[in-house]
Amino acid sequence: MTPDISTAEDRLAKLGIHLPDAPTPFGAYVPAVQTGNLLFLSGMLATSGHTATAVGVVGKDLDVEAGRKAAYTAARNVLALTKQQLGSLNRVGHVVRLGVYVAATPEFTEHAKVADAASELLRDVFGDETISSRLVLGVASLPFGSPVELEVILEVKP
Amino acid sequence: MTPDISTAEDRLAKLGIHLPDAPTPFGAYVPAVQTGNLLFLSGMLATSGHTATAVGVVGKDLDVEAGRKAAYTAARNVLALTKQQLGSLNRVGHVVRLGVYVAATPEFTEHAKVADAASELLRDVFGDETISSRLVLGVASLPFGSPVELEVILEVKP
Amino acid sequence: MTPDISTAEDRLAKLGIHLPDAPTPFGAYVPAVQTGNLLFLSGMLATSGHTATAVGVVGKDLDVEAGRKAAYTAARNVLALTKQQLGSLNRVGHVVRLGVYVAATPEFTEHAKVADAASELLRDVFGDETISSRLVLGVASLPFGSPVELEVILEVKP
Repeated sequence: MTPDISTAEDRLAKLGIHLPDAPTPFGAYVPAVQTGNLLFLSGMLATSGHTATAVGVVGKDLDVEAGRKAAYTAARNVLALTKQQLGSLNRVGHVVRLGVYVAATPEFTEHAKVADAASELLRDVFGDETISSRLVLGVASLPFGSPVELEVILEVKP
Repeated sequence: MTPDISTAEDRLAKLGIHLPDAPTPFGAYVPAVQTGNLLFLSGMLATSGHTATAVGVVGKDLDVEAGRKAAYTAARNVLALTKQQLGSLNRVGHVVRLGVYVAATPEFTEHAKVADAASELLRDVFGDETISSRLVLGVASLPFGSPVELEVILEVKP
Repeated sequence: MTPDISTAEDRLAKLGIHLPDAPTPFGAYVPAVQTGNLLFLSGMLATSGHTATAVGVVGKDLDVEAGRKAAYTAARNVLALTKQQLGSLNRVGHVVRLGVYVAATPEFTEHAKVADAASELLRDVFGDETISSRLVLGVASLPFGSPVELEVILEVKP
């Protein structure tokens, strides 16, 4: 087997994913801050522009599949913001941390299935060698009623 | 327009903000840990000493304005702790991450308005050039019934 | 008083703690990612293998003592994963951040008591000089119904 030498931008194009405009802040913060070679992204929601693409709590208003769609939308926003910040997705050295926060009921237990929709998109674009560590929580609610919010810390190539 | 060459300590004095004593831990942890030039602060609550200044869930027990007051109180505790840890607020190079965790109902959607009260205070003191990335979640409950908790990671000037 | 020159591995042995196998991922992520000298662990639950050792929300299904047991179990998983990743617990320079996320009711206020069970185990093993900063939140629910999840960022000795 020949090694995969394609880049993140190659893989994005091959997957046929069209990135939206990078989300702009909903308040007194900036989209991302870099310190040393770590880039901290602001929380990415399942939004298009300043509107949530889905609203509700997973396990009550939304099922796992709808939660996964929201996680995918939020992860696409992560890609859009990363590209805006770094110029090219190829500058990402590693996804250090992915936090997946799911608005969920107290009885919900399938958070990992929802989170995987975000993890899988990031893996498919950034590659198997840069799969993140992960933190998954079920929270009470999220800004604008979004069912999912993502926290991302990236290592930027020197 | 002349550039703003005032320092964080200058701005704090001009705003007339009196900092409380830095919060002390509620358990087996320390107020902050520095690694390299990053200072990780422990979660700051809306407390005075070891007592919550407000108690309850935003969207049920408390309205947005009461949530904003709690966020402001917690942000003032962030300033007090930062000054205690670094000696001077002027040693802060950048607010890398601000996490705002709001005890909120499943139906609440205005988390960003609550969070802005913390973001605005930090911006007013540390300056426009050091505005943080941000992560805002609605959680079920917080220690001692505080409506807001803040997570802060700071870059310290060399 | 003579200074404590015992190592983390010494202390673990003296405490008689038997570490389980390191938890393996529940999805498309890796157990930990190191960037520079910081090691980000994936969220550790109160699990044995892929089964939760306790299930439920603290303040409703479980009391504080049951929450503490879950926090201890999750902290033991942190130790197991750290040893697997670094080869020896003695390579930990500092516990930079401990996040303790407790599945809790909106009325619950004793999150710190639950969290201390994790903090105390890490302190007893890694030593007083490496006590972490801490962030404690009450969340709606956690993967697989675990009552507690831990987030850990470690500084690795050069």
